[in-house]
Amino acid sequence: MFWSIVGTCAASLTMLSFIPQIYKIVKTRSARDVSFMTLLQLTLGVSLWIAYGVHLKDAIIIGANVITLVSLLITLGLYYKYR
Amino acid sequence: MFWSIVGTCAASLTMLSFIPQIYKIVKTRSARDVSFMTLLQLTLGVSLWIAYGVHLKDAIIIGANVITLVSLLITLGLYYKYR
Repeated sequence: MFWSIVGTCAASLTMLSFIPQIYKIVKTRSARDVSFMTLLQLTLGVSLWIAYGVHLKDAIIIGANVITLVSLLITLGLYYKYR
Repeated sequence: MFWSIVGTCAASLTMLSFIPQIYKIVKTRSARDVSFMTLLQLTLGVSLWIAYGVHLKDAIIIGANVITLVSLLITLGLYYKYR
């Protein structure tokens, strides 16, 4: 039970980590210092995690990474608008 | 074999994703647009992943997240210097 909570907190924190970055870019209308390569590497990596999750038929890996992917795609879109 | 390569690529891309951000902050001497909360959430999340990996006795989860944690701590240090 304790370790399920630790795992859930770990997944939630990392999965939702780009929400504050999205908020900051929208608020300041600037993404100049954000690394495009970091966003690109994460987008590719998370996409491969989704493929790997589909292979393992693991709903947790798929679900967590789909949410991360959506937030990364929004961040990439904002990067292009405000860089 | 194919899926091991997909998993390894996924892990490598996400694990090393903050290296370009470190490089960009050092080069531009600015981290103003980087979200502190994003870095903090990832640092906490990755730390919990390490604890979860220790619980599962899974060297891959521990190793990958230790590398990510080190790069995030460097990024946080640079954020404080150049924000």
